Amino acid sequence: MSDAKKTRTTVEIHNRKYTIVGEESPHRIQMVASMVDQKMKEIQEANPKLDTAQLAVLTAVNATNDYIKIKEEYNHLIEKLKREEQDKNG
Amino acid sequence: MSDAKKTRTTVEIHNRKYTIVGEESPHRIQMVASMVDQKMKEIQEANPKLDTAQLAVLTAVNATNDYIKIKEEYNHLIEKLKREEQDKNG
Repeated sequence: MSDAKKTRTTVEIHNRKYTIVGEESPHRIQMVASMVDQKMKEIQEANPKLDTAQLAVLTAVNATNDYIKIKEEYNHLIEKLKREEQDKNG
Repeated sequence: MSDAKKTRTTVEIHNRKYTIVGEESPHRIQMVASMVDQKMKEIQEANPKLDTAQLAVLTAVNATNDYIKIKEEYNHLIEKLKREEQDKNG
């Protein structure tokens, strides 16, 4: 990917500022940052003793798990569509 | 969900131990933890000055962004299938 397409967006998550560099629009980055911030708050409310690093690690674990789950569903759907297509043509 | 279905799995991420409570299998939790640990290492190699909290927050941002992207693709596919179904029946 060319550097020209990269955006730099500064967001605040759990009272610290982060500059995120990537292909996503600043609007998208703000939305993602707000989701992470919100999830950290939720985990903190349930576990007030955790420090920022622990909250962030658990947030990353949650998000990665959500990602894998939806990716599996997506792949299953693609496989199902392929099989249906083969049945139609075979 | 009943508590009886919950598992407790202890994982190590970035040299700290976390006990993850949830519906997922211990095998799945270990896989997710290993993905988070790996992603934190990658971000650290690219940004050696970041502390653990910053690495974990950026890992959470990455994972959340990946989740949203695949969820959008999944939703688009579902919408496309629905439209095709309607076209067939209409």
